Amino acid sequence: MIDPVALAAALIRADSITPARGAVFDVLEAALQPLGFAIDRFVVGEAPDGPVENLLAVRAGTGRHLAFAGHVDVVPPGEGWTGSPWSGEVRAGLLYGRGAVDMKGAIAAFVAAAAQEDRAPLSLIITGDEEGPATYGTVALIARMAARGVAPDLCLVGEPTSAQRLGDTIKIGRRGSVNIWLSLEGRQGHVAYPHLADNPVPRLVAMLAEIDAVVLDHGNRWFQPSNIEITDLYVGNPATNVIPARAEARIAIRFNDEHRGEALVARMADIAARHGGQARARISGEAFLTPPGALSEQVAGAITRHTGLTPELSTTGGTSDARFLSRLCPTVEFGLLNATMHQVDEAVAVEDVMTLTAIYADIIRSVAA
Amino acid sequence: MIDPVALAAALIRADSITPARGAVFDVLEAALQPLGFAIDRFVVGEAPDGPVENLLAVRAGTGRHLAFAGHVDVVPPGEGWTGSPWSGEVRAGLLYGRGAVDMKGAIAAFVAAAAQEDRAPLSLIITGDEEGPATYGTVALIARMAARGVAPDLCLVGEPTSAQRLGDTIKIGRRGSVNIWLSLEGRQGHVAYPHLADNPVPRLVAMLAEIDAVVLDHGNRWFQPSNIEITDLYVGNPATNVIPARAEARIAIRFNDEHRGEALVARMADIAARHGGQARARISGEAFLTPPGALSEQVAGAITRHTGLTPELSTTGGTSDARFLSRLCPTVEFGLLNATMHQVDEAVAVEDVMTLTAIYADIIRSVAA
Ligand SMILES: [Zn+2]
Ligand SMILES: [Zn+2]
Repeated sequence: MIDPVALAAALIRADSITPARGAVFDVLEAALQPLGFAIDRFVVGEAPDGPVENLLAVRAGTGRHLAFAGHVDVVPPGEGWTGSPWSGEVRAGLLYGRGAVDMKGAIAAFVAAAAQEDRAPLSLIITGDEEGPATYGTVALIARMAARGVAPDLCLVGEPTSAQRLGDTIKIGRRGSVNIWLSLEGRQGHVAYPHLADNPVPRLVAMLAEIDAVVLDHGNRWFQPSNIEITDLYVGNPATNVIPARAEARIAIRFNDEHRGEALVARMADIAARHGGQARARISGEAFLTPPGALSEQVAGAITRHTGLTPELSTTGGTSDARFLSRLCPTVEFGLLNATMHQVDEAVAVEDVMTLTAIYADIIRSVAA
Repeated sequence: MIDPVALAAALIRADSITPARGAVFDVLEAALQPLGFAIDRFVVGEAPDGPVENLLAVRAGTGRHLAFAGHVDVVPPGEGWTGSPWSGEVRAGLLYGRGAVDMKGAIAAFVAAAAQEDRAPLSLIITGDEEGPATYGTVALIARMAARGVAPDLCLVGEPTSAQRLGDTIKIGRRGSVNIWLSLEGRQGHVAYPHLADNPVPRLVAMLAEIDAVVLDHGNRWFQPSNIEITDLYVGNPATNVIPARAEARIAIRFNDEHRGEALVARMADIAARHGGQARARISGEAFLTPPGALSEQVAGAITRHTGLTPELSTTGGTSDARFLSRLCPTVEFGLLNATMHQVDEAVAVEDVMTLTAIYADIIRSVAA
């Protein structure tokens, strides 16, 4: 038996600000070793987005193959903690430390569950770079799995998806995300002689008004409506009597599965072009959905058995590494309460770690069966 | 007799980057002293807009009182001059140096004209700060004149108003100028959770679209249409996934005599308020007009007699100290070619300085008569 709270505390105490390498993987590897996993730790990538350490642990068994995915890196602690962010100490039933809910508590719960349920085929897909650029993290792990022929039937991402109570929410998809930089050129001049200049700002304003009026969709069964936000404006003209030569804006689109990033970029570029502007885009991820099915319903069933709750099937929130894993197999996300993630005094209830361990063990059993 | 070209060269050689004090006023005072002027040099104001030196020279006489107004300060020379910007040397019929056309050449021409026409009542209203903030320049001179009971009938500002040929343009008014800073507050948030945030940018865009659609007027007999330019936008949000809390813009309005600055500010503040924003304004000057009349027509008549040109009566361009002087008496602006003002290799044709001297002498005679 493994005590998931003690393991979570040991993971918290290990150095792991993103990108995490070394110590925190040593703790995880030591815990997995006695459980019969073949462990593959590897470092990939170069600056600026690397090098990154990853760990792939695979155990053979009988039945369907469940993969647990997660990250051991954490965001910087910030100022103002009551104790040390690396203490991993329990006070009044709460285990404190950066990463307690996001997501060392879940990793510890899964390892403890794997110790209990030792007949199912299992994989652990653990990266040291999820909170950073993620260029050499889960993407590299998926390539490693393909090279080694590791093909899970269901992927369970341990991100903290619960909102008010453990078990109230699982994520079965995420929206896509794209940022678009818009720019317009004009001709500089003096405000006293506007006919000699070409002010790009009114055209930018008209372009943005048109973009702001776009209704991408009205949402659907599983997704809220896609959304466009104008996140920045820039001209940078200090001189009150000068008409500027260039104006810029940046927009962020979070889109559901009715859209593809490329098509949205083309649509925005078309609006920009009609106002004489240009668009440059970076697609962070496409929308994806694992429609509720036999396998993912095992997750909901296990949650209900241990908490009495019927989890909401959600697709809200930011992006996660599930966007990569969903190309591999049906993927659901379920983990601890997210209230303190990335906050000062991040903490998880000891009881929640124990319950999560029981739920994960139940899922291992149910999926394998 | 005074040689206006030699006097202009002496003024160019004297130190006078704005704000000008000392040397350049010494040259001017020495030239005026033998001509019977009572000379009042005074320094006023404190940092940051002062101290500033000014000179008021008054000579009694018979007939109507003409005041010549101008400045001895110059803008910095910048890089790339063929010779020294302070040489005051004549090459191929051109007198070179910073201030040659703006406006030491005109000051020298007026002093030489005053030496020729010694029976008319004359004033010289000369500031050392027109190119700078102008807080303690012509405004202080006007106060000094009021205190001493100096009340001219016509004011002639010697700014370089000619465009293609000496005498083609005089200015009988100027547009007003106001800058307005607009800002909108919202509530910061994450682009994945827009319902928890309040993005101020779309409201700013709508506000600016409304402002951009405003038609202030269609111009009139003497003025071109008033004009609004959006000169800056600012959000300053480096994070692509953050909805910003604040958005700003700056507009510049150049307005004709159908408007007052305060009313325009109120109108823009009203549009801003309807979008939840605020407006902060700085009025640089009101529009003014000296409608063509008996006195100002003397100026046009003198120009025609010496150049054969019928000057255009213009109100275009930026602001000038005429905005202050026009409150005192009818005010017109007439001076040298403005092509090289504030440019590298600023220069004036020696012939133009001589012709301008003859025109100014004619104006002194005509106005006094
Ligand atoms: Zn996480
Ligand atoms: Zn000037």
